Amino acid sequence: MKIATLGPKGTFSEQAALEYLKNTKKKGGIVFCSNINEIFNSVNKNKADFGVVPLENLIDGSVGETLDLLYHSDAFIKEEIIVGIHHCIAGREDSGIKDIKTVVSHPKALAQCLGYIRKNNLSTRECLSTADAMRIVAERNQGDLAAIGTESAAKEYGLKILQRNIEDRNNNVTRFIVLSKRKNKKGKGKQYKTSIVLHPTKDRPGLLHDLLKPFAERKINLTKIESRPTKLRLGDYVFYIDFDGHADDRKVRDAFKNIGKLAKIKILGSYLGRY
Amino acid sequence: MKIATLGPKGTFSEQAALEYLKNTKKKGGIVFCSNINEIFNSVNKNKADFGVVPLENLIDGSVGETLDLLYHSDAFIKEEIIVGIHHCIAGREDSGIKDIKTVVSHPKALAQCLGYIRKNNLSTRECLSTADAMRIVAERNQGDLAAIGTESAAKEYGLKILQRNIEDRNNNVTRFIVLSKRKNKKGKGKQYKTSIVLHPTKDRPGLLHDLLKPFAERKINLTKIESRPTKLRLGDYVFYIDFDGHADDRKVRDAFKNIGKLAKIKILGSYLGRY
Repeated sequence: MKIATLGPKGTFSEQAALEYLKNTKKKGGIVFCSNINEIFNSVNKNKADFGVVPLENLIDGSVGETLDLLYHSDAFIKEEIIVGIHHCIAGREDSGIKDIKTVVSHPKALAQCLGYIRKNNLSTRECLSTADAMRIVAERNQGDLAAIGTESAAKEYGLKILQRNIEDRNNNVTRFIVLSKRKNKKGKGKQYKTSIVLHPTKDRPGLLHDLLKPFAERKINLTKIESRPTKLRLGDYVFYIDFDGHADDRKVRDAFKNIGKLAKIKILGSYLGRY
Repeated sequence: MKIATLGPKGTFSEQAALEYLKNTKKKGGIVFCSNINEIFNSVNKNKADFGVVPLENLIDGSVGETLDLLYHSDAFIKEEIIVGIHHCIAGREDSGIKDIKTVVSHPKALAQCLGYIRKNNLSTRECLSTADAMRIVAERNQGDLAAIGTESAAKEYGLKILQRNIEDRNNNVTRFIVLSKRKNKKGKGKQYKTSIVLHPTKDRPGLLHDLLKPFAERKINLTKIESRPTKLRLGDYVFYIDFDGHADDRKVRDAFKNIGKLAKIKILGSYLGRY
C-alpha cells in the first residue's frame, strides 16, 4: 500500500499518513510529494493507493488548494484524520535550553509559538519550512541556535528536543483527508459524514436559502458551509457543504433530487466522522 | 492621513493602499507593518487613520487571519479595493532576459508563474517574499539570476524589468479592505454591500437555512458565505456573510430583527461594492 503525502519527512501531513497506516493495520510506505497537486495526481493516476492532504486548520481555516483540487479530481474522500498541532524547540546535542538565543522556523510556526518566544526573549529567523529549520540547526555549529517544529523532524535531523509543546494554543488541530479512487460503501450502524460541492446553475437572491431547504426539511445537520470563487470571476461561487449522513441514505438522496434542479452536485465522499 | 498596510515596500498591499489614497485624493503616508494583526492594532489604537488588509484572493480564497481579526476588532470595513495580481521578472542592469537561468521568489509567486518558468526552462529558488527576492538579486553579482515579483518592488531595489505580466492567469485578483474606526454613513442612490458575522446561539439541523430565511424572504442577495471555526473546537462555526445593501436599509434591519433571535450579529461594515 502506497500513501502519497506532503514531504519532507517530519511534516504534520506525514503524521496524518502514519496515523492512517496505523488505523488500517496494513503494511505500507509513504511517498513524499512537494505539493498538494502532486498528491492528487498520484492518486488520480494510480501511482499511489491513497493520498493524505490537509483540508482545514482550526486557526487558519480551509486549505483553498485542496478544496479546488477536490472539485476537479476523480478522487473521493475516504476518511478524515485529526492531528494536533504541537511544536517543540530542538537544538544541537551539546545545547541546553538556557543557551538558546535565536530560533529559526517557518513564519507560521513562529507565529504559533509567539508567547513562548517573547517570554524567553528569543530572536527569530524565518525559513521555508519547519523541516528546513531543523536542517539549518543540524548543519550549523552554533550552540545558541535552535529550531521550532515537529518532534519527528527534530529526530530526523538528529537534534535534541529541548522542550515540548511550546505552542501558544494547545488545542490547535488540522483536519486531513485520505483520498482514494474508490468510494466508501455504506456500512451498517456507522456515523457517516458527507462532503459535497454545489455549483448553482443560475444566481439569484434567496438561492442559497433554497439550496439548503431540502436539507432543513429532512433535518439533515450541516456541519460546514463555505463559498469559493469558481475562478471565472470574483463573485461567482460554488458551495462546499459537509453534513451528517451518507450520500446513499434515502433522505439524502431525496434532498439531492430537489437540489439538483438548482445546482450541479458533486459528491466528494461519505466517510466516518471523527468529531 | 496615515494608512497602515503590509510591508515591505512593493507588496500588493501597498498597491491597494496607494490606490485608496489616489481615490480619496487626500495627502497621506503609508506605515508598513510586518503582519495583519499589527495593522488592526494600529487602527484600533488610533495610531493610523486607516488600515489596508487582504481579505480574499480569487485563487487562494479567504485570508483566515483577516476574517478572525475582523470579528474581534472594533474597526469597520470602509471600502473594498480590487488589485490585479501581476508579476514581472527582474534582473540586474547588465542582464538580458536570455542570460537568466535561475529565478528566485516566494513559493506562491513561483507557483503563479509556473507556465512561464517551465517554458523557459528556468531553475527556481524559494525565498521569504517577493520583495526579499528582489533584494537577493540586487545584492548578488550573478548575471544569470532574476527575481519574480511586483514592478514596484523591482524598482525599489533598482532592478531592471526584463518582462512584464509573466503570471499564468492574467485575471487573478485580490480583494483588499480598508479598515476604519468610523462606520460609513448611508449616502443616497449608492450601491452598498454589507459584511456581517453570525454567531448562532445554539446549533441544530436546519439552523443555517433558518438564518438565511429572513434574507431570502426580503430578496436580499447574498454574495458570499463562509463558515469559520470559532476556535473553541473543530466543528463549532460562525458564518461570514456578504450581501447587497446597507445595514441601515429598512429591509436589512427587519431581517436582522428576525436573525437576532437565532444568532449574535456583528456588522463588519457597509461599503460601496466594487464588483
